[in-house]
Amino acid sequence: MSIPNTPYKIYLEENEIPKFWYNVRADMKTKPAPLLNPGTLKPMTAEDLAPVFCEELVAQELNDTDREIPIPQEIQDFYKMYRPSPLTHAVFLEKALDTPAHIYYKFEGNNTSGSHKLNSAIAQAYYAKKQGLKGVTTETGAGQWGTALSMACAFFGLDCRVYMVKVSYEQKPFRREVMRTYGAAVTPSPSDTTEIGRKILAEHPGTTGSLGCAISEAVEAAVSNEGYRYVLGSVLNQVLLHQSVIGLETQAALKKYGIKPDVIIGCAGGGSNLGGLISPFMGEKLRGEADYDIIAVEPASCPSLTRGRFVYDFCDTGMVTPLAKMYTLGHDFIPSANHAGGLRYHGMSPILSQLYHDGYMRAVSVEQTSVFKAAEMFARTEGILPAPESSHAIRAAIDEALKCRETGEEKTIVFGLTGTGYFDMVAYEQFNNGTMRDYIPTDADLEKGFASIPKIDL
Amino acid sequence: MSIPNTPYKIYLEENEIPKFWYNVRADMKTKPAPLLNPGTLKPMTAEDLAPVFCEELVAQELNDTDREIPIPQEIQDFYKMYRPSPLTHAVFLEKALDTPAHIYYKFEGNNTSGSHKLNSAIAQAYYAKKQGLKGVTTETGAGQWGTALSMACAFFGLDCRVYMVKVSYEQKPFRREVMRTYGAAVTPSPSDTTEIGRKILAEHPGTTGSLGCAISEAVEAAVSNEGYRYVLGSVLNQVLLHQSVIGLETQAALKKYGIKPDVIIGCAGGGSNLGGLISPFMGEKLRGEADYDIIAVEPASCPSLTRGRFVYDFCDTGMVTPLAKMYTLGHDFIPSANHAGGLRYHGMSPILSQLYHDGYMRAVSVEQTSVFKAAEMFARTEGILPAPESSHAIRAAIDEALKCRETGEEKTIVFGLTGTGYFDMVAYEQFNNGTMRDYIPTDADLEKGFASIPKIDL
Repeated sequence: MSIPNTPYKIYLEENEIPKFWYNVRADMKTKPAPLLNPGTLKPMTAEDLAPVFCEELVAQELNDTDREIPIPQEIQDFYKMYRPSPLTHAVFLEKALDTPAHIYYKFEGNNTSGSHKLNSAIAQAYYAKKQGLKGVTTETGAGQWGTALSMACAFFGLDCRVYMVKVSYEQKPFRREVMRTYGAAVTPSPSDTTEIGRKILAEHPGTTGSLGCAISEAVEAAVSNEGYRYVLGSVLNQVLLHQSVIGLETQAALKKYGIKPDVIIGCAGGGSNLGGLISPFMGEKLRGEADYDIIAVEPASCPSLTRGRFVYDFCDTGMVTPLAKMYTLGHDFIPSANHAGGLRYHGMSPILSQLYHDGYMRAVSVEQTSVFKAAEMFARTEGILPAPESSHAIRAAIDEALKCRETGEEKTIVFGLTGTGYFDMVAYEQFNNGTMRDYIPTDADLEKGFASIPKIDL
Repeated sequence: MSIPNTPYKIYLEENEIPKFWYNVRADMKTKPAPLLNPGTLKPMTAEDLAPVFCEELVAQELNDTDREIPIPQEIQDFYKMYRPSPLTHAVFLEKALDTPAHIYYKFEGNNTSGSHKLNSAIAQAYYAKKQGLKGVTTETGAGQWGTALSMACAFFGLDCRVYMVKVSYEQKPFRREVMRTYGAAVTPSPSDTTEIGRKILAEHPGTTGSLGCAISEAVEAAVSNEGYRYVLGSVLNQVLLHQSVIGLETQAALKKYGIKPDVIIGCAGGGSNLGGLISPFMGEKLRGEADYDIIAVEPASCPSLTRGRFVYDFCDTGMVTPLAKMYTLGHDFIPSANHAGGLRYHGMSPILSQLYHDGYMRAVSVEQTSVFKAAEMFARTEGILPAPESSHAIRAAIDEALKCRETGEEKTIVFGLTGTGYFDMVAYEQFNNGTMRDYIPTDADLEKGFASIPKIDL
């Protein structure tokens, strides 16, 4: 197979930025299972969700029939600040690998939030503003989502309250300062600003916090303050919908040069990037128009797809959220502290979980030292220092390209490069010093997490 | 004056990346004065410079007649990784300022080195490789240049030894780790790896180093190791030549949409960015083809153009370099430690110094709290967190745009956004906390620096 002579970086024109998000649920024969009210075990209704989420976002969350959702003009305008993002032909990486494969990556890191998270943050902030709200609350761990939301709220003049896991707040002061520069109020969690925070502090003095706790505080802050709602950067259907802009641009850029991908690869934590990247390609596959080898890459230390269970579970550790049917390691599962990157979520987007369950995609897990080896090679050949999360996809893309070197196949591989690693240098320092370690949970470790899955009979 | 309907971001096509650098010296009636050998006070010859710099770079340093210098194909290929850089119409900033001015910025921060420094680093590494050298040495303060050089050396498989000012080495571990990820050997300066370093350590135990000391160590390491040369990221004529790629792209993008700038603004430390951005426009001005209001912006704490003297001085504190005729505060001048950004150099590119002296450009100085206010406004409206250095240009551009609001003039303002501030969050934290202070040297402070200027009679 010969490849057309493309530029190294394929930039769409500004007027080729998508004007609709693509809703993959519309093409799914088996829809993702609905969120359940944990009290009644009945599907969550719009009324149930309205106190927590903005109205328009509730509608998007529940909409599994409309294939295209128009992107409001204000969001399209904001997208122009940092989109279209480049689809890059990784010619220098190909050369270093001596592979007949053709490798392309969609790079979402060329914005100050440093990742794809901004695609959904701006949409969620817009709908909050449109509803006349005063502000939004959220949690952040590593800080990519919090940064993106802070930028989005600054743009629309919306108050932004971020509960940042205390250990990150202290260890990642630079992320915190970026959010503050964008005007966000950043609170280390657990804090004394919420009832649940005070309770946790009383029970566990000196705790450094967890994402589960931060979610609980953010939700409480939203429902107990007039004019506020809670927003979330992954897992939810609405987030995958907004992130479809990644896949739509990728599809358009490939089509423009007559390139047909064979393999599409993305890293997977809660699923926001992977779901966005693959959505339109998955749509073609679901409609029987094309076939692609779609690969989710997860860390061996947090293997929700490859070793988890497809059941109803809470979305958070604190059990304040609805139940979602998804691949999960149990909401009490906590990945080894030595795991450097993100992708530490115990569950997985219900959409991706259903697609995986139905055999439309496969999943691989990779260990972090091999991930950082791939990151180093990528940085040195392609000139971009990748985020640890993104580097999981790089690892899998390199592995596929090396298989092609063995077989001689000229496959076209497309992967999502979600972001940059400028705020992850502590992990790179471990790798550079040779002190980074791998960790794979034993079956017994996993059983402890599975034990937290609620025993419900549907 | 009405402005054509341009895209928000103007990207040139890949085949529009310049194939020649523009050498502004060819169009200067009064050439910049030659570097002098401090021993003989005679102009430095190619033979004098050869032990320190690569042959081809010596030729470029001394060439003040050829208007165009071809960019070797290997460098053009590397440029494709992160160039063309976007020229962005700052529509959101214009709206926030409520100004009739049209503001455009050339953004050089979309690469892992985070700045324009890569444009010259890759050229210098290429010529070192071509000459069959083993490696290069350099110094770095804040770390942008060291990072850029590390990336360039990794690409060509060249050894890279960076002497990093000790206080930065300790306070900016993340910059250090980026360089190490690219395979560079980073040594805190002063160190015991050089004679001058050992001498300084013996005389000043516990010193946290200075750029002058790091230059001395880097030069010694180059001349005393077989197969090594010294490279530098600013001030030199060769650096301004390589950086002309910024201005050439800017000029091409503006021409493509029929936009004629009235004002061109760049921040100025040693002059690498400003010189590169303005070169082709200055060429038009020197040839009498067009007129532009060209503004250098420097910090009030280190005002070499606005308050310095146009005389021969050493390029470094350690007096190991040749003498250059330039605007200088004296090589012993050290700007206040509380100054957050870069732009701390005591001198200025001899090319820019001559042009300023001859009245082809003007200079303004700005105080750092007002610079960070401009940075914050820019970050919130345009979505990019700027480097403190770049923010000096933002400040001046905003000031010009506000003048237009007063006068009603529809001026077109173009400024250089040299890089991102992701590794400068300590400074942003000071600003966010309200603890940042301004500092303007008194005349008496300046006199102390001027006293170090060598008394030579030519």
